[in-house]
Amino acid sequence: MTSFAPLFVPAALRAAVSDDAWLAAMLDVEQALAEAEADAGLVPPAAAAAIADACRPDLYDVAELCEQGRVSGNPVEPLVRALREHTGEDARYVHLGATTQDVLDSASMLVARNVRELVDEELTTLADVCSRLAEEHRSTPLAARTLLQQAVATTFGGKAAGWLVAVVEARARLRAVRLPAQLGGAAGTLAPLGAQGIHVLRLFARQLRLEEPVVPWHAHRWPLAELAAALDAVAAAAAKIGLDVVLLAQTEVGEVSEAPGGVSTAMPHKHNPMRAVRARACARLAHASAGVLTGGEHEHERAAGHWHAEWSALSDLLALSGGAVDAARECLEGLRVDTARMRANMSGDLDAGDLGSAEAFVDRALAFYRAAA
Amino acid sequence: MTSFAPLFVPAALRAAVSDDAWLAAMLDVEQALAEAEADAGLVPPAAAAAIADACRPDLYDVAELCEQGRVSGNPVEPLVRALREHTGEDARYVHLGATTQDVLDSASMLVARNVRELVDEELTTLADVCSRLAEEHRSTPLAARTLLQQAVATTFGGKAAGWLVAVVEARARLRAVRLPAQLGGAAGTLAPLGAQGIHVLRLFARQLRLEEPVVPWHAHRWPLAELAAALDAVAAAAAKIGLDVVLLAQTEVGEVSEAPGGVSTAMPHKHNPMRAVRARACARLAHASAGVLTGGEHEHERAAGHWHAEWSALSDLLALSGGAVDAARECLEGLRVDTARMRANMSGDLDAGDLGSAEAFVDRALAFYRAAA
Amino acid sequence: MTSFAPLFVPAALRAAVSDDAWLAAMLDVEQALAEAEADAGLVPPAAAAAIADACRPDLYDVAELCEQGRVSGNPVEPLVRALREHTGEDARYVHLGATTQDVLDSASMLVARNVRELVDEELTTLADVCSRLAEEHRSTPLAARTLLQQAVATTFGGKAAGWLVAVVEARARLRAVRLPAQLGGAAGTLAPLGAQGIHVLRLFARQLRLEEPVVPWHAHRWPLAELAAALDAVAAAAAKIGLDVVLLAQTEVGEVSEAPGGVSTAMPHKHNPMRAVRARACARLAHASAGVLTGGEHEHERAAGHWHAEWSALSDLLALSGGAVDAARECLEGLRVDTARMRANMSGDLDAGDLGSAEAFVDRALAFYRAAA
Amino acid sequence: MTSFAPLFVPAALRAAVSDDAWLAAMLDVEQALAEAEADAGLVPPAAAAAIADACRPDLYDVAELCEQGRVSGNPVEPLVRALREHTGEDARYVHLGATTQDVLDSASMLVARNVRELVDEELTTLADVCSRLAEEHRSTPLAARTLLQQAVATTFGGKAAGWLVAVVEARARLRAVRLPAQLGGAAGTLAPLGAQGIHVLRLFARQLRLEEPVVPWHAHRWPLAELAAALDAVAAAAAKIGLDVVLLAQTEVGEVSEAPGGVSTAMPHKHNPMRAVRARACARLAHASAGVLTGGEHEHERAAGHWHAEWSALSDLLALSGGAVDAARECLEGLRVDTARMRANMSGDLDAGDLGSAEAFVDRALAFYRAAA
Repeated sequence: MTSFAPLFVPAALRAAVSDDAWLAAMLDVEQALAEAEADAGLVPPAAAAAIADACRPDLYDVAELCEQGRVSGNPVEPLVRALREHTGEDARYVHLGATTQDVLDSASMLVARNVRELVDEELTTLADVCSRLAEEHRSTPLAARTLLQQAVATTFGGKAAGWLVAVVEARARLRAVRLPAQLGGAAGTLAPLGAQGIHVLRLFARQLRLEEPVVPWHAHRWPLAELAAALDAVAAAAAKIGLDVVLLAQTEVGEVSEAPGGVSTAMPHKHNPMRAVRARACARLAHASAGVLTGGEHEHERAAGHWHAEWSALSDLLALSGGAVDAARECLEGLRVDTARMRANMSGDLDAGDLGSAEAFVDRALAFYRAAA
Repeated sequence: MTSFAPLFVPAALRAAVSDDAWLAAMLDVEQALAEAEADAGLVPPAAAAAIADACRPDLYDVAELCEQGRVSGNPVEPLVRALREHTGEDARYVHLGATTQDVLDSASMLVARNVRELVDEELTTLADVCSRLAEEHRSTPLAARTLLQQAVATTFGGKAAGWLVAVVEARARLRAVRLPAQLGGAAGTLAPLGAQGIHVLRLFARQLRLEEPVVPWHAHRWPLAELAAALDAVAAAAAKIGLDVVLLAQTEVGEVSEAPGGVSTAMPHKHNPMRAVRARACARLAHASAGVLTGGEHEHERAAGHWHAEWSALSDLLALSGGAVDAARECLEGLRVDTARMRANMSGDLDAGDLGSAEAFVDRALAFYRAAA
Repeated sequence: MTSFAPLFVPAALRAAVSDDAWLAAMLDVEQALAEAEADAGLVPPAAAAAIADACRPDLYDVAELCEQGRVSGNPVEPLVRALREHTGEDARYVHLGATTQDVLDSASMLVARNVRELVDEELTTLADVCSRLAEEHRSTPLAARTLLQQAVATTFGGKAAGWLVAVVEARARLRAVRLPAQLGGAAGTLAPLGAQGIHVLRLFARQLRLEEPVVPWHAHRWPLAELAAALDAVAAAAAKIGLDVVLLAQTEVGEVSEAPGGVSTAMPHKHNPMRAVRARACARLAHASAGVLTGGEHEHERAAGHWHAEWSALSDLLALSGGAVDAARECLEGLRVDTARMRANMSGDLDAGDLGSAEAFVDRALAFYRAAA
Repeated sequence: MTSFAPLFVPAALRAAVSDDAWLAAMLDVEQALAEAEADAGLVPPAAAAAIADACRPDLYDVAELCEQGRVSGNPVEPLVRALREHTGEDARYVHLGATTQDVLDSASMLVARNVRELVDEELTTLADVCSRLAEEHRSTPLAARTLLQQAVATTFGGKAAGWLVAVVEARARLRAVRLPAQLGGAAGTLAPLGAQGIHVLRLFARQLRLEEPVVPWHAHRWPLAELAAALDAVAAAAAKIGLDVVLLAQTEVGEVSEAPGGVSTAMPHKHNPMRAVRARACARLAHASAGVLTGGEHEHERAAGHWHAEWSALSDLLALSGGAVDAARECLEGLRVDTARMRANMSGDLDAGDLGSAEAFVDRALAFYRAAA
C-alpha cells in the first residue's frame, strides 16, 4: 500500500520486492524442489523437466492468485493448483513433500538475496562517497556540535569518517546475514519424504544457493530477525547521514547544500535537502517494519497470524532500507560543501588549532574501509 | 509495497487508499481551495471554474507525478505544475496561497474520511453479528479460560458480549475522530492571503466538509495521532475476535469452526481458521503503522522526514485496520458453534449452575449496543 | 529498572507510580470491595471494618510480596494471603468474589487517576506559559522554517500558539479518558456473587469513584489503549516544544536559550538546553511504553503474558509522559527569548511585513485556550 | 520504574543493571582513564593512584547524584565534581580529556558485559535442558500443529530441538556482540589529549577489556543496535518456549504442565503455567526497549534526547531479556511431560508411523548444540 512509492524507492528495488518478484521466487523454489527430488530419485527426470517448464512466471497472474488465495490465506495454495494444471500428467510430482511455508519462506530468502545485492552495491557506492569526503576534508575545520551546541572544533573529514565507519559496519552486518532455505514439509518433519528427507533438504538448499538449516525454522524466526536487524542498521546508517545533512544545510548554518532539485510549491527560493529528508523518511518506515519481523510470536509449528504479517513487513523493510541508502548516496554525491562557511560559523570559543586526533580518526576510518572492501 | 495485498484487504479499501485515491483527493483540495477563494473574492469565478475543470483525475498520471516529484520530495509540486498547465490562462490562481502540505494533509483527511465510512459499515455489520451471537448464546455454557486454563463456567454469549462492547467502543472512538482541514500557506501564517486568510480557511474547510482547525497543524500532529489511535483500537477489537476464534477452533478444543475454505497445500483434511488468522495479521501490521503516526518529531513549521513517512503509514493503517475488521466479520458470519463440544469440554471442576451474572452482562452489552446504534 | 530516574521524573510522579503506590491502590481496592459487599449485605459490617483496618499499607512489604508472588505471577495472591492474616477471623470475607486481575486492573485505574491529576496540573501550567509567550510575542517576527530551511516570516507568538493548542488538546484528551473499575470475578462472570453481582459492581465502582463498565474488560483492553494513546499525545506535545527549543537554541540560531543550568563536564562554556532534551528523552521512552499497552493480544478471559507486561509499561508511561511535561514546563518557564536575534537571523528573502494571519492565529489559539480552561 | 520487578527479574540481574551497578561502572571507567593516562605519561602515577582510591562506590550516593544531575541532564557531571573533591589535590587529573558520554557509554558496555555473562550462563543451562528434552523425547510422538490445527505427527524431541537451535543461535549471537570502549573527548576528536589521543584510547580500551573502536561512536549507535538486536533475539527464543508451553498446557491439551506453583486467588484448583507466562511478558517488554535502542536519531556529535533515552532502555532490555531466559529455564526444568496424553490427543487423521525425519532433525540439533558448546 506504500503511497507514492516511486518518491522513496528506486524502480529496481520496487521491482525486486514486487508481487511479481515474489511469484518468480516461489516458482524458483518449486522448480528447485522438483530438481532436488529428481536428484534424490523421488521424482522422474521427465517430471522435473515438465515442472521446470511450467515454472515460467508469465503463465501466472499474481493478482488473481491472491484473490483465489484469500480463502486459504496465502498465494501458494492457488499457485500450486495452477502449477499442477500447467504441469499436466506429472502434476502429482509438483510441490512433493513441501508445505506452503516452505515455498514462501524460501522465496523470501531469494527475494532478500536479490535485494541484498542491490543494497550492497548502493552501500559500497555510499561508502566510497563518504571516504572521498573524509579524505578531501580530512583537515577542513568546522564546529563539532553536541546537543546541537557548538562544542569544540573537528574536521568535516572526521564527520564523514563517522558516517563511513557506520556504513561499512552496516554493510558487513548485512553481508554476514545467513539466508537459509526452508524445507520441513507439512509441519517440520519432512514426513512424506521418508528417509530421504534430509538428503532432499541438502540438495534443495544447494540448488537455491541458500544455507542448509539445522532444523526447519517455520516457527523460529531468528533468520528473519537477523536479517531485519541488519537492514534496520543499514537504514539507520543512511538516516544518520540524512539527519546531519539536514542540520548542516539549515539556512542559519549553511555549511552544506544538496545539488539543486528540492523545489517548493510556495517558495521557489527555497532549496530543500530533499534527499536527506527522504533517507530519514525511509528509515523511519523501515524501522517500523523491522519491529514486525523481530517481535512475532509463532505458535507451535506455524503461526496463526504473525507469520502472515511478515510478508509485507519484509518487502517494505527491504525496499525502504534500500531507499534510505539510495537517498543518502544521492545526497552525498551531489553535496556542496562550503568550507568558508564552516570556518566562519565557528564561534570564538572554539580552537581549530589542535585537530590532530580528528585527522588520526579519519586515517583510521579510511584504513578500516580499505581493509573491508 | 504491501505484499499480496488482495489476500488481506478488500478491493474497495485498497482502492480507497490507492495513489489514485490520493490523487483524486488532492485535486478535490485544489478545487475546493479555488472555490473558497472565489467565494472570498480572491479568485475570479471563471478562474475557479477553469481550475475545477482541470481537477479531473483522468488528466494526470500518478506514477509519473511521483517520478517527477522525486526531486521535490512530494507529489504535489509536479501536480500543481501540471494542473496549472491544464488550467491555462488562469494558471496563476491555482494553489493560491497554499503549500504542498496543505494539499497533502487535507487530502489525507479526505482519504481518511472515505475509508472511515467503509470501516464504519464493516464495524456495524461486525457488531451486529456479535450481538446475534451474544443473544443466541446468552445461556450456552462453556469454560472461561484464564491464562489458557479452564477457570469457571461462562456462556458463549458472554464471550460474544465482550467482543461486542469492544467493537462498539472502537466504532464510537473512530466516529469521534476529528478530521480538520489544513490550510496555513507556506509556513502556517496564511501570509499570502493577507487579511482574508482566516476567512478563506473557513470557506475552504466548509467546502471540503472538514473541521476548521484553530491553527495550522503542519507540525503538530495530534489530529493524525488521534486518528491512528482510533484505527489501532479498531484493529485490536478485530484481532481479539481472531485470537479467540483461533484458540476455540484448535483441534483439541473444537468449539467453533470457520465456514469452509481454509485449505492447506500439504494437508487437505485440515480446516484452518483463515479469516481469524487474517484479522490478527492485519492488526499486527496496522499497529506498526500506527506507531509511525504517533511518535513523529516534527521540526519547526514542517518536518524534514517524519512528515514524509506518514503517507504510507496512514494508507497502510487505514487499509489494514479495515482489513482486520473485514476478516473478523467474515469469520464470525460463517462461524459454526458446537455447543455440545463446549459443554463436553468443561472440566469436572467447573460448575455451570450459576451463570446469572454472565447472562446479565450479555443483557447489558446488548442494551449498550442498541443505545449506540 | 528506569536508570537515573530522578534525572527524568519529578519525585511526586515517581512516588505516584512506585510499587508502594500500587500497593496502596490495591489495598484501596480490597477495602472498597469489602465495603461494597457490606452495602450489598454480602459481608457483615464488622468484617468490612476489620478488612478496612487491615488495608493499611504499612503492614505490608511490597518487595517481599513480589518475591512471594514470583510463583503465582502477580503480587495480589500473596497480598490477599497476608491481608487475610491481618484481618483475622473475618478473613473469609477478604477478596470475596474477586480475582487477581480485578484488583490489579482497578488499582491501575487508581494509580492512573492520581497521576492524571499531577500531569493535568503540569499541563495547565505549561499551557499557561505557552499562552503568555503567545501573547507577549504575538507580533515578534522570526523566520518560519520548513524542512529546516527559512521559509517565510512568522511570529514567535504564532509558534507558541501552536504549542499551546497542542497542549490544550492533549489535556482535553487526557481528561476525557474514562477510567473504569474492574470486577468480574474469576473469569468475568461475577459467578460467586450470584444475583447480587451487578449490584456489587455498581457499588464497588462508586466506592472507588471509577466508571462502571458495561462488561468486564479483563481481556478487552480498550480502556488502557485509550489511556495510553492520551498519555502518548501528552508526551508528544511536550516533545514538540523540546524539539523546537533545541533547534532555536542552536549556537548558529541562538534565538532562545534555557535558564542557566545545562553545564558540561568537558566544556564549561557550553549552555545546553537540558530541559528540552529531557522532554524529548522522556517522550521517546513513553512512546515505546504506549506501544506495549496498545498492541497486546489477550487470550480468552485473561492473557497469558501480555497482561503481565502492562504493569511496568503503564507505570513507565505515566511517569515519563509526566516527566516530559514537567521538563517542557521548566524549559519554557525560564526561556530567554532573543527577539533581536530572531529579526537578525531572518534572511533577506523573507518579508516580515504581512504577519496579520499569524497574529490572527495567535488570537484564535488564546481564545481556544481560555474557552478550554 | 519497572513495577513489581522481583516478579520478573532475578535479584542478580536486577543488581547488575541497578543505578549502583552503573555507578560502579562509571567509577571503573574514570579509574581506567586515569590509569591509561598514567601509562601514557599524561597523569602522574601518584595522581592515578589517588583517583583510583577515590573511585570507591561507597563514597557516592547515586540518588543524590541524579538529583544534582537534573540540571546538567546526566549523572556524570556531578559524579566528576564529587570525584574531584575526593581526589583532593590531584583533582585536575580526574576525567582528563574525557566527556560525559565517554563515561556513560563505556560504563554501559561494562554493565552489558556483566549482564551478558549472567545471561550466557542462563542460556547455557536453558540449552542444556532443551537438549535433554530433545534427547529423552526424540521419538515421543505428538501432534504437530500449524495455525493451531493438528497437522501431522512429530515428536516432542523435535519440538525441543527447535527450541534448542534457537537458544543456541541466540547465545552465539549474543556472544558475538562487540562491546567497544568509548573515548572521544568533548566531541569525538580527543582534542585535549593532543598527539597522545589514539594511544590513550588504546590503553583505555585495554584497561577496561573492551574493544578499541575505529572512531568514536557517540552519535553512531551501531554497537548498541547490535547489542539490542542480540538481546531481543535472546528474549524471543525464550518467549517461543513460553508460548509453546502455554499452549501445550491448556486444559484441553494437557500435554505438559509446569512444576507446581502457579496458584490463583480465585481458583485454587487451577495450575497456571506462570513461568511460561513470565517469559512472554519479559520478552514483550524487552522488545519495546530494543526498539528504543535501534531507531534513535543522533544529531551531529551527540544527540539531544535520543541518547538520554537509551540508558533506561538498555537497563530494561538487559534485565528483561535475562528475565525471559530465567523464566524459560525454570519452566522447562520443572516441566512434566505427559506422553500418554500426547499420544491420546493425536487425531485419527495423523499417522505416527513415519517419524524418521523428525528424529533426524533431533540428532542434527543435538550435534549442532554439542559443536557450539
